[in-house]
Amino acid sequence: MAIDSAAITAAVRAALEAQGVQVVGEKGLVPVGISNRHIHLSAAHVEALFGKGYELQPMKDLSQPGQYACKEQLTIVGPSMRAIEKVRVLGPVRKDTQVEISRTDVYTLKVKAPVRESGKIEGSAGVTIIGPKGVVTIDKGCIIANRHIHMSLEDGEKFGVKDNEYVNVEVNGERRTKWYDVQVRVHKDFRLEMHVDTDDANAVGIGNGAKVRIVKD
Amino acid sequence: MAIDSAAITAAVRAALEAQGVQVVGEKGLVPVGISNRHIHLSAAHVEALFGKGYELQPMKDLSQPGQYACKEQLTIVGPSMRAIEKVRVLGPVRKDTQVEISRTDVYTLKVKAPVRESGKIEGSAGVTIIGPKGVVTIDKGCIIANRHIHMSLEDGEKFGVKDNEYVNVEVNGERRTKWYDVQVRVHKDFRLEMHVDTDDANAVGIGNGAKVRIVKD
Repeated sequence: MAIDSAAITAAVRAALEAQGVQVVGEKGLVPVGISNRHIHLSAAHVEALFGKGYELQPMKDLSQPGQYACKEQLTIVGPSMRAIEKVRVLGPVRKDTQVEISRTDVYTLKVKAPVRESGKIEGSAGVTIIGPKGVVTIDKGCIIANRHIHMSLEDGEKFGVKDNEYVNVEVNGERRTKWYDVQVRVHKDFRLEMHVDTDDANAVGIGNGAKVRIVKD
Repeated sequence: MAIDSAAITAAVRAALEAQGVQVVGEKGLVPVGISNRHIHLSAAHVEALFGKGYELQPMKDLSQPGQYACKEQLTIVGPSMRAIEKVRVLGPVRKDTQVEISRTDVYTLKVKAPVRESGKIEGSAGVTIIGPKGVVTIDKGCIIANRHIHMSLEDGEKFGVKDNEYVNVEVNGERRTKWYDVQVRVHKDFRLEMHVDTDDANAVGIGNGAKVRIVKD
């Protein structure tokens, strides 16, 4: 049978707390996953960049169920005519191509990428994507991802937050910081993880798996 | 005669407030200066990198009186054997050479630079500096600068803070943030400005001259 480790942890915690033992640590904490720049592709753009009939090759599962890093990497170029090479493609294919970069990349490429929730690409920036079999220039879809937290329905209840609610997050990195206006995405298929880009991670000095705390104020 | 514009502003503000007019805007705000990676050199290292008898050539004054950007740029290399080129030298010469980089640069160079107050280089990282006439490898002096605010004695009184006090700062950037543990440096020769590196600036999405607010909590 499958063990529900969260339930075991909760039971032990409750038993200890009933005896007056203060349990510190994991409670209320959210692990961080740092998103390097990456590309989601539409089926049409997979063929335009890699050739007719091409299929993305999964390389490694990501923390969110069904999502994976692909073997494929692409080059992106902006109005500066400078290129950023080896940008990882993530699968599976999506309805719309989306290129997620950091503000540091914005200065390299000179693209006007806005901070956006994933999928909200109307009015966002264009960029050129270079593949082994073709070049695609999108007129929207290049964004800086907003700070967001994925969580399951159970974690939504545990943290007392609803889908699409915004919370604040305390970060005890090497440079202590509070992140405001962090979007919470609650879905039965999500696993608890806060996603930030390399600029946010490097500013505070944390790595993958660091724990941050949701706060009310 | 020289006009003390801060005194004029304060007098107008006081006169308006005496009439019950609420003055919003600049009060309590601090302009931001974003520090890109840069190098301070000792006199001995100027000669080692540029040749005997060489003197740094001032190019542009910086906001803090007496400090200037030089025409000279250098290349730095870390254990990754990757180089970062065109790193600006700042003058005047200092007692110790100090290389200030961002955490993003740390990942490029693979140097173990700690977050430090300027000048506190004991136990910090080493790095190799390449100049047109020589190469210098320092065994300490490579740091990530801490977040800090320069202010005059008058501004220290206005803000109610002392030299070396730590404050928190609210940042209304594209991604709203609070920076904790910001060091305040009060000195008669300083001009009001908060210094952050490119990681902090890019994480919140602000440029030079953005205004941030010192808060008590």
